[in-house]
Amino acid sequence: MLDKFRVRTDLALEAKESFEQDDVEIKGVVVEEEYDEEREIHITKVKIETEKGAKAMGKPIGTYITLEAPNMSDPDEDYHKEISTVLAGHIRNLIEHSEEEQSILVVGLGNREVTPDALGPEVVGNLLITRHVIQEYGKLAMGKDKVNLISGIVPGVMAQTGMETLEIIRGVVEETKPSLVIAIDALAARSTKRLSRTIQITDTGINPGSGVGNHRHALTRETLGVPVIAIGIPTVVDAATIVNDTMENLIEAMEQSDHMKGFGNTWREFDSSEKYQLIRELISPHLNGMFVTPKDIDDTIKRISFTVSEALNMAFQLS
Amino acid sequence: MLDKFRVRTDLALEAKESFEQDDVEIKGVVVEEEYDEEREIHITKVKIETEKGAKAMGKPIGTYITLEAPNMSDPDEDYHKEISTVLAGHIRNLIEHSEEEQSILVVGLGNREVTPDALGPEVVGNLLITRHVIQEYGKLAMGKDKVNLISGIVPGVMAQTGMETLEIIRGVVEETKPSLVIAIDALAARSTKRLSRTIQITDTGINPGSGVGNHRHALTRETLGVPVIAIGIPTVVDAATIVNDTMENLIEAMEQSDHMKGFGNTWREFDSSEKYQLIRELISPHLNGMFVTPKDIDDTIKRISFTVSEALNMAFQLS
Amino acid sequence: MLDKFRVRTDLALEAKESFEQDDVEIKGVVVEEEYDEEREIHITKVKIETEKGAKAMGKPIGTYITLEAPNMSDPDEDYHKEISTVLAGHIRNLIEHSEEEQSILVVGLGNREVTPDALGPEVVGNLLITRHVIQEYGKLAMGKDKVNLISGIVPGVMAQTGMETLEIIRGVVEETKPSLVIAIDALAARSTKRLSRTIQITDTGINPGSGVGNHRHALTRETLGVPVIAIGIPTVVDAATIVNDTMENLIEAMEQSDHMKGFGNTWREFDSSEKYQLIRELISPHLNGMFVTPKDIDDTIKRISFTVSEALNMAFQLS
Amino acid sequence: MLDKFRVRTDLALEAKESFEQDDVEIKGVVVEEEYDEEREIHITKVKIETEKGAKAMGKPIGTYITLEAPNMSDPDEDYHKEISTVLAGHIRNLIEHSEEEQSILVVGLGNREVTPDALGPEVVGNLLITRHVIQEYGKLAMGKDKVNLISGIVPGVMAQTGMETLEIIRGVVEETKPSLVIAIDALAARSTKRLSRTIQITDTGINPGSGVGNHRHALTRETLGVPVIAIGIPTVVDAATIVNDTMENLIEAMEQSDHMKGFGNTWREFDSSEKYQLIRELISPHLNGMFVTPKDIDDTIKRISFTVSEALNMAFQLS
Repeated sequence: MLDKFRVRTDLALEAKESFEQDDVEIKGVVVEEEYDEEREIHITKVKIETEKGAKAMGKPIGTYITLEAPNMSDPDEDYHKEISTVLAGHIRNLIEHSEEEQSILVVGLGNREVTPDALGPEVVGNLLITRHVIQEYGKLAMGKDKVNLISGIVPGVMAQTGMETLEIIRGVVEETKPSLVIAIDALAARSTKRLSRTIQITDTGINPGSGVGNHRHALTRETLGVPVIAIGIPTVVDAATIVNDTMENLIEAMEQSDHMKGFGNTWREFDSSEKYQLIRELISPHLNGMFVTPKDIDDTIKRISFTVSEALNMAFQLS
Repeated sequence: MLDKFRVRTDLALEAKESFEQDDVEIKGVVVEEEYDEEREIHITKVKIETEKGAKAMGKPIGTYITLEAPNMSDPDEDYHKEISTVLAGHIRNLIEHSEEEQSILVVGLGNREVTPDALGPEVVGNLLITRHVIQEYGKLAMGKDKVNLISGIVPGVMAQTGMETLEIIRGVVEETKPSLVIAIDALAARSTKRLSRTIQITDTGINPGSGVGNHRHALTRETLGVPVIAIGIPTVVDAATIVNDTMENLIEAMEQSDHMKGFGNTWREFDSSEKYQLIRELISPHLNGMFVTPKDIDDTIKRISFTVSEALNMAFQLS
Repeated sequence: MLDKFRVRTDLALEAKESFEQDDVEIKGVVVEEEYDEEREIHITKVKIETEKGAKAMGKPIGTYITLEAPNMSDPDEDYHKEISTVLAGHIRNLIEHSEEEQSILVVGLGNREVTPDALGPEVVGNLLITRHVIQEYGKLAMGKDKVNLISGIVPGVMAQTGMETLEIIRGVVEETKPSLVIAIDALAARSTKRLSRTIQITDTGINPGSGVGNHRHALTRETLGVPVIAIGIPTVVDAATIVNDTMENLIEAMEQSDHMKGFGNTWREFDSSEKYQLIRELISPHLNGMFVTPKDIDDTIKRISFTVSEALNMAFQLS
Repeated sequence: MLDKFRVRTDLALEAKESFEQDDVEIKGVVVEEEYDEEREIHITKVKIETEKGAKAMGKPIGTYITLEAPNMSDPDEDYHKEISTVLAGHIRNLIEHSEEEQSILVVGLGNREVTPDALGPEVVGNLLITRHVIQEYGKLAMGKDKVNLISGIVPGVMAQTGMETLEIIRGVVEETKPSLVIAIDALAARSTKRLSRTIQITDTGINPGSGVGNHRHALTRETLGVPVIAIGIPTVVDAATIVNDTMENLIEAMEQSDHMKGFGNTWREFDSSEKYQLIRELISPHLNGMFVTPKDIDDTIKRISFTVSEALNMAFQLS
């Protein structure tokens, strides 16, 4: 849900990059990178292993896998089946006992009425829902020996329901007893170049608001009592990002003229997160309730929601 | 939800009429009628007081109020505020302790993707949701001394979620502890003349499938632990109705010719519910999964969902 | 658009069958049948070659190809790519000079707000639209030597626009000068078993209201000045069909009893189209504004709109 | 449509203010202001009377009326009937011969799939469309002696249709011969405080791209042959605005420190439009395809589309 773009970034990858930029090394954080040349997908696995690492990254302990697929936002005949296949593999890797039959509840977070926030609802709308069929007619109705029971829900956002998402999902989990929850959500990125081109999969669940610390409304193993995998794709950017990027360009341009050098130097004394923080403070408070998104976001959401739902449908098949 | 049009009729009024047609009187059922001349609304209150009456009517014990407003389906400047006002009054009468502050969960039943079944979701979409605001900022945020906490949910239908509506709503009720549930639903009528012109309000909740007996998935005080008021408007007719009505016309026409008299007489020997039952049995099984609805149902749903949501917004005001 | 279900049937195939049923042979109508075993698609080509044939069939002179694909309405991994492929081939066969570059306007008829009528709008929503890109940046932007310019429009229905569809489309054709119009529409069938399983492709355009004769609002080569191919899929059935089918069952059942024989005999004296006509006359006039459609039509429309748009995207590729 | 936020501002009011800020007076531009205390609406009428004024303002000759209603974006029982009433009056004032019967085509510009751009489509969806009824049944069907014929169209955006909006509308105008076109559109503002609180009504039509000069795709009396009234409400802000506003805050803050004074002075040497231009040039080119909009824009669009459609329905009544 888009409230989260009050956070610096929803992407562990971007949190990591912001440290690299400032040449800081973080203990308790292990990073592995891999490039799938054939499918042109860059895969980064960030493992936060200690509380210290969690604090530094502003994200809870756990595994964060990021797929960067530059052409994901472009049209394609098959909704990028090659990305779905890779994504399906990583989802299966994060599911504990993925070879056994499970009951999986997929939660489509976000507001279906606001285009860039409709990713979660759209994905659930495209899923193959099977729980009711199997409960009524048995596995044979699916023509398989081993099946997962798939259920799905689109809880809506607080302005529509008057309830915390956690209240709704916890109630549904208690009643229907899934063995796993998968939450799909639109994210906020710091860089426009990540928009609709990056997928983050994590076993830490959804931590709205701030990451470490404020677990009040999180959808996690702690709050729901079952493992929670979260899949997110950035569809909006933080307004502060735009200002920050423009500032950098501005200063570079102005330094050409003599009497501006001073400013550039002062500005350079700040590290990247101090600059970002400064801008966040100076940005108009009105902007906290606003988001920045591409004009063709309707098309993109339609397309990538298929990429994700297809990956889930694949990942849920038991051989 | 439209599954319910497997039932003879969702309207207590029609159940009652089918007895009257056959000149049967039912014990344990009290009927009061009233005509609001100014607003052109016919109001019928059917009270089922005994188990015997319940069995005869095929509906649980409770109060069923029907507003018949012939012009409700016609366009109007204010979404028929006059109907909203009357409806609001009857809703308040069914709410226990309606003068005290309550937490009310409004449930929009039905499938938002199927036009005549989208009534419930549309109504919830138009409601003034307040629970989260009051919980965060207190009553004063609403500028009132006494306020109801209003929450809303659109659970979706089983084909979309893989879960029973009852499972979802029971979970949400347990987590958020409302003192009252109000469920909004599209109904099936037996007569095309009732479509989008009749509102039924009842304190018996929602009894999908059959009414008396099959309480398995009902949304009622028994299953949810709090009072449940149901508000329904017929937006589809039962396919059997169409056949039945046409048959009557056909037989009348055919009896003009001599050798057809025999048929007419045999047909007449059945009482109206026997005839209906016969047709239900003979009707193509394919039709059980089908519904009959007016071509302009999109416009009608849009309009009457405002009439209902406006009534709820009025009924929820505490002076 | 659903007005057309005032017609007996939108399918030439069903018109033909109704003659066969009555053992009538029609001059000027040539029928070819073919079965694609691998893909399980039954293909019927009805060529109406003379005015006499046109009058008998109640449809204009031209070619009507019907694909019957029983599993089209079932879910499938790839939106039934095998059906799209066959459909694409038949569309290309009907396009004159299909190897040359053309400007093609695809018209999505119907009301997007009424689920079974949303087929046309959904198909246009899924199409690869290219005209503006090619006009702005040239063919090379598409990475091809030979390209078709594809444009699309969803005109809405008369209740929404106050205008005839013909008025809108004729205006757009005059301004944008396409060399071909392809109109996509939801149809009415006489048999529930055809619903969402049959595709009709014809080079005669769209003839709302009645077929032969009433060309007033037709979208045809005569009214638009360019060839018009129409692609239709039945998503609703005629209310009279339901009554008719039930009647047949009823009479069969009643004939078991002695004194009913007379009725059955009389009924049998009518031929199938007389019976149908009789029922149409006796059916409640309210039903003329109503349609009958499956409860899961939302899912079906979503799926088959991809089958059709994918076929169009394929058919529009120039090698 | 949101392409237009490439322009500095769609609001004549903001163009005027940007001059005032720099203490420039513009010849050929007359401004009248008025405050409706009861309804809390500030009304500004900007009349551009000469080509020189047009050039200075970057907008064509004509009348621009702006209603500023701070509480328009807040919920209200009647969709702000008080604003609808004032708006209706100003619309009638701009309609030539508004007492005579006319045929009026209302065009809902924008992309219905992108929430802040859906204003036009939503307004047309709420309108009372009458042309087809009057043409079929005569004025008496409306129960009036004098009636306007109202038609409406939602042409879609170029990415959806492959056609210029002008091509579609010119075609429809030629076929259906309205005496007046009214175009409804979502606008871009420079200030977040104008969002969803300001309505601009003008008799100059729609001038996408740039205002004066580039008339190629404009919807105006010149291009359509009939008067064109445009009604617009800002629902997005220009990304450059955000940067600009933050810059001002930043510089103010930084000037506290000694060595920054130089920068502030340099920056102050630019006038406001130079600064804006500089930022536009330095802003990331990615941002040209992006928009900034409030998170609760879905609710706002729903509500203000009623305010506008209600105003049109009132304005179209002939006494």
